Amino acid sequence: MVLLKQPEGNEASVLNGSGGQNMAAWVCGKNDLKVQPYNLPPVLGDHEVKVGIKAVGICGSDVHYYRHLQCGDFIVKEPMVIGHECAGTIEEVGKAVKNVAVGDRVALEPGIACNKCKLCKQGFYNLCPDMEFFATPPVHGSLANHVIHPADMCFKLPENVSLEEGAMCEPLSVGVHACQRATVGPTTKVLILGAGPIGLVTLLAAHAFGSPTVVIADISPERLKVAKELGANATVVLSTSDNEVESEVLALQKAMGADIDVTIDCVGFTKSMKTALKATRAGGRVCLVGMGHNEMTLPLTPAAAREVDILGVFRYRNTYPLCLDLISSGRVNVKPLITHRFGFNQKDVVDAFETSAKGGSSIKVMFNL
Amino acid sequence: MVLLKQPEGNEASVLNGSGGQNMAAWVCGKNDLKVQPYNLPPVLGDHEVKVGIKAVGICGSDVHYYRHLQCGDFIVKEPMVIGHECAGTIEEVGKAVKNVAVGDRVALEPGIACNKCKLCKQGFYNLCPDMEFFATPPVHGSLANHVIHPADMCFKLPENVSLEEGAMCEPLSVGVHACQRATVGPTTKVLILGAGPIGLVTLLAAHAFGSPTVVIADISPERLKVAKELGANATVVLSTSDNEVESEVLALQKAMGADIDVTIDCVGFTKSMKTALKATRAGGRVCLVGMGHNEMTLPLTPAAAREVDILGVFRYRNTYPLCLDLISSGRVNVKPLITHRFGFNQKDVVDAFETSAKGGSSIKVMFNL
Amino acid sequence: MVLLKQPEGNEASVLNGSGGQNMAAWVCGKNDLKVQPYNLPPVLGDHEVKVGIKAVGICGSDVHYYRHLQCGDFIVKEPMVIGHECAGTIEEVGKAVKNVAVGDRVALEPGIACNKCKLCKQGFYNLCPDMEFFATPPVHGSLANHVIHPADMCFKLPENVSLEEGAMCEPLSVGVHACQRATVGPTTKVLILGAGPIGLVTLLAAHAFGSPTVVIADISPERLKVAKELGANATVVLSTSDNEVESEVLALQKAMGADIDVTIDCVGFTKSMKTALKATRAGGRVCLVGMGHNEMTLPLTPAAAREVDILGVFRYRNTYPLCLDLISSGRVNVKPLITHRFGFNQKDVVDAFETSAKGGSSIKVMFNL
Amino acid sequence: MVLLKQPEGNEASVLNGSGGQNMAAWVCGKNDLKVQPYNLPPVLGDHEVKVGIKAVGICGSDVHYYRHLQCGDFIVKEPMVIGHECAGTIEEVGKAVKNVAVGDRVALEPGIACNKCKLCKQGFYNLCPDMEFFATPPVHGSLANHVIHPADMCFKLPENVSLEEGAMCEPLSVGVHACQRATVGPTTKVLILGAGPIGLVTLLAAHAFGSPTVVIADISPERLKVAKELGANATVVLSTSDNEVESEVLALQKAMGADIDVTIDCVGFTKSMKTALKATRAGGRVCLVGMGHNEMTLPLTPAAAREVDILGVFRYRNTYPLCLDLISSGRVNVKPLITHRFGFNQKDVVDAFETSAKGGSSIKVMFNL
Repeated sequence: MVLLKQPEGNEASVLNGSGGQNMAAWVCGKNDLKVQPYNLPPVLGDHEVKVGIKAVGICGSDVHYYRHLQCGDFIVKEPMVIGHECAGTIEEVGKAVKNVAVGDRVALEPGIACNKCKLCKQGFYNLCPDMEFFATPPVHGSLANHVIHPADMCFKLPENVSLEEGAMCEPLSVGVHACQRATVGPTTKVLILGAGPIGLVTLLAAHAFGSPTVVIADISPERLKVAKELGANATVVLSTSDNEVESEVLALQKAMGADIDVTIDCVGFTKSMKTALKATRAGGRVCLVGMGHNEMTLPLTPAAAREVDILGVFRYRNTYPLCLDLISSGRVNVKPLITHRFGFNQKDVVDAFETSAKGGSSIKVMFNL
Repeated sequence: MVLLKQPEGNEASVLNGSGGQNMAAWVCGKNDLKVQPYNLPPVLGDHEVKVGIKAVGICGSDVHYYRHLQCGDFIVKEPMVIGHECAGTIEEVGKAVKNVAVGDRVALEPGIACNKCKLCKQGFYNLCPDMEFFATPPVHGSLANHVIHPADMCFKLPENVSLEEGAMCEPLSVGVHACQRATVGPTTKVLILGAGPIGLVTLLAAHAFGSPTVVIADISPERLKVAKELGANATVVLSTSDNEVESEVLALQKAMGADIDVTIDCVGFTKSMKTALKATRAGGRVCLVGMGHNEMTLPLTPAAAREVDILGVFRYRNTYPLCLDLISSGRVNVKPLITHRFGFNQKDVVDAFETSAKGGSSIKVMFNL
Repeated sequence: MVLLKQPEGNEASVLNGSGGQNMAAWVCGKNDLKVQPYNLPPVLGDHEVKVGIKAVGICGSDVHYYRHLQCGDFIVKEPMVIGHECAGTIEEVGKAVKNVAVGDRVALEPGIACNKCKLCKQGFYNLCPDMEFFATPPVHGSLANHVIHPADMCFKLPENVSLEEGAMCEPLSVGVHACQRATVGPTTKVLILGAGPIGLVTLLAAHAFGSPTVVIADISPERLKVAKELGANATVVLSTSDNEVESEVLALQKAMGADIDVTIDCVGFTKSMKTALKATRAGGRVCLVGMGHNEMTLPLTPAAAREVDILGVFRYRNTYPLCLDLISSGRVNVKPLITHRFGFNQKDVVDAFETSAKGGSSIKVMFNL
Repeated sequence: MVLLKQPEGNEASVLNGSGGQNMAAWVCGKNDLKVQPYNLPPVLGDHEVKVGIKAVGICGSDVHYYRHLQCGDFIVKEPMVIGHECAGTIEEVGKAVKNVAVGDRVALEPGIACNKCKLCKQGFYNLCPDMEFFATPPVHGSLANHVIHPADMCFKLPENVSLEEGAMCEPLSVGVHACQRATVGPTTKVLILGAGPIGLVTLLAAHAFGSPTVVIADISPERLKVAKELGANATVVLSTSDNEVESEVLALQKAMGADIDVTIDCVGFTKSMKTALKATRAGGRVCLVGMGHNEMTLPLTPAAAREVDILGVFRYRNTYPLCLDLISSGRVNVKPLITHRFGFNQKDVVDAFETSAKGGSSIKVMFNL
């Protein structure tokens, strides 16, 4: 087991509850999660709020940090509080805060951009080079009793939206941003590769953006069954074999029964991108969301010669108000995605992460704090 | 030598000139070009014109067909008239033609789209599945004394634009379309990979689109010297080694002295695309124009995670009026690109193609008919 | 009564039916409609089809020509066949036609653009200066037993779409184009001014484009009742008084309960545009569809200073496939809009136009031929 | 003379210079400008800088406040420091400041947005409802020896850009933003109405955005002479008569010699907008920049029926880096616009404002502090 050196000031022993103290779930090493005290700054900034966290979902990146202390280029070098899909209740507000008040139930957008650089000012704040994002090392996450956060990154929940649904705005935002980047609209027929949690929220988002037909494909018939229940117009079971790309492309196009305008790859493997590039119509768009493989060998030139564009997706921007609106109005129902629930104590935290890591029938694993 | 079966009705022997007969340069086999009669339909359609071709440039794809009887997925299966970068004089007009008159000097846009399909009606006619394009098999080209063409694909030359410049609208269109697809404007700092003919016209186009800084890179210092003369703000000599990508990216970024907003890859090799994906800023765009490699092994996911989009380019659409305007107003000067001139007879045609195929100091090889 | 001189070749007397002869409804003078023979060209063009018209709706412009021989700048100077919202059955196809076959049920897009000018080639064919549009003088319309039309302007009806629904694609297209121009999407809260036929199809379109909230306003509570039944999220009764603009703007904003991102004015009076400019949020868009007043006195500068853009709408482009998709998939239900049905004979034609002209409870008046 | 009550803490008598004290030019009543002490907060915020102001230009809105204590909806109710087009030298930096250092020469973007609201996060910060903008009441301006400003609104001048040119970024930004809103590019033929300072910077911007042809019109032949010297491709003298619109539209279209794609109205009178709406091609864009008339009587419907869009302009966003780049690279030369220079003392301040108010041969009046 890799052991990380504990940072100063958080050296308390493992506890299963909090006697007034703020507790958080710390990644302390590979497969080593500990619920331990987490000291917050004593004073709120003028534009900050203190939030009592009530619901936290587990994301694939959380599991990566738990298993490997790494996700993409980000490496956990010191113990880090995990978790970033969250909602809670406002407990205290800085003196300049106007958009929320004590007692409000809010969803927390996990990234804090600088708001001062060129990209931020142009509205592309998700690309801010100084972004601080919950549970992206070295920034602590939000699987804790309390966190401090900028008020403008807290979005009040409509009355009919639950705290769990508030936490679901985070993964839903990824699907929403993919649809925004790929300009999904009422004329756009969408193929989604991968029926994991991100594929499924992308399915929900695509329909909310007006897409008339969403075909979704995966290697798991079980996942596709869920996709079908969530409204997929058609589903296709794919193999893991690289030799099947051509025939699978035909099957996908047949399942669509029309040109595939946009393919959203929520897997990100060489095979899925190869399939995406071949299946999408001339002048269409492929959106790469999944991050399975770093390097891929692809027939890029034939795709370029059909002006099939490849659009990257990194997290999301300006999506929370829309997500809350989609959930509140019933246009999107995220509840069926929450398959497992856990409490917030040492045993449950480990069990929850193991459940999420195992995959299988679990889609979204949620903590209730 | 591969020999192609001659289609019926054009079986005349090789001639060096035309006694009233319409002569054309036929690709008859690998490295086998013959100037032979080319029979045109006897009657003009209502919307067609007959053009006396006066200037034809040689494109890389022409050379490919000459050497390999193939370019991309297109294969020459029967003898085919070559050539598509052309301008000439209107000799006859169909009865419904209004936009040009006999005697007008015109540039010919070489592709004839169906104008009826969904993509055509939406303005994406370059992606029309029924496109007929000069010298893309099985469609004959325009290196001939006379051709018949739709009037609306003939664009009258302003008085101060020469026929050779008219022919240059074709390659210039590729650079213009790349800049349109990549939305080059006054804030866009552009890196161009490759200083061949397409790289050079893209350089001219990028400046015309308002780009403040264009850095261009190539393995050939000689070509970069030309690029510098044509207005490149900086040039960088690249190696052929795959190990140099990281250091070359730094050199390119340093040469730019600012974020690289757009990279236009006019080479299309794995190495150039790797360089493009790494050199371009987060939120920037990579435009793939060159078609060197079909399949490439690329770090696609890290690029997507910085929302660096990859935009394909296939020929061009709606570019001819702009090209003529750019040339006529002096905003673009294509004349320095024309390095070699040939007449239209058996010997010259072969010599011209060999000159173009050899590369070296030749940029654009032009026929005067 | 204004009497128009009958054009040659169509001078037959008024008939109530057709003994093999092609009959059409002609506007012969103000309030003078006659069902008379309508001779079609004897030979089909290669890309043309002959359609047996089965359903035709009456549009406000049709009524204008009937009452005033004029609509906007267009004036009826010779007897003209009326009608342009239509669907029918393919009876004969030109030899180059591939997209439809004899027996196919089709919706007819009524405008024939040149497909050759700059605007057509860029996809803006609705702005083509040479557009020929059913029942826009001097072009004849389609309230006839048979018409000839370009095949690419005929769109095959899905099995579950009726001929009447096919005819409804025309007015629905106006709403769809307004939503396209105003970029309505899942984040767009839309105010519609006017609950006449165009206001109502725009309401249907806005929801299909993903708009979460559509507020619709009119002076008629009856019309708003229909709008409510068709899915309007809220309705507001407006007065005809110019003094009420300020208070009505507040009422509209309150009914929305959020910023008004887009206002679509389907009335086009000074008062409605004043309301639109004031009600729409900074950075929002006002789309002018209705054509009530030609000249308007408006507080344009304060709107410009909030970057509220004014977007014009002229007919539509590239909407028919989407309309058929929307109707076929059930995302839009146009059936409740059809309130009156008439046969095709002298008496019914006059009755139908009078019914439509009277307004009242009629929304869409439809002929079944 | 209207006298405004002096706010507390700035009651010092009129001085012509500063003995270490920070002096500023205060609008104290109609036509009443006083150079008086201006106390700045004693402590810099972490992200703020103190700037020694060196160059300030006079804008039309400054003159409005001087003459009328009002501009648009904004009213001066208490004495207010005037001036907002400025550049200076960094004298002190807050502890979190990284983008500039003491001694740096900078242009100051005059508006401070909240960076927290929906519009700011989407990049539309110029529309921020909480914007604080130099010399827009009740916010003080920058015609002062020293001001405090957010560091991220200070843009370092390239070595070859003077402080006066830095101050000129402000008016130039308006022209640049108009060109951005109207998507001016290499295919866009631009008509500019009004050859005052804003019309002239818009002319410079339009060329920098690649416009091939800019026609500019005004009632003053003198101003048009300047426009011609600044590069206008053609100029047209207009009358003040409303009866001339039709013939003037023809003259403007003839001067363009092509379709007018975009008209930028830098006057904002009923007549200029009427001209703009009629002169612009179908599918073109009219950008309203000038704010001459509040309410206008316009033929809006015929313009909408040609899909001529009307785009509002309010100040600008994200323009300063581009402006500095344009000036530094020589693509834009703002120097000829600076026609008058004054020092910073009681007499000069009044003289300068009177010079600017008088108009005539003055274009931009500049203070050197």
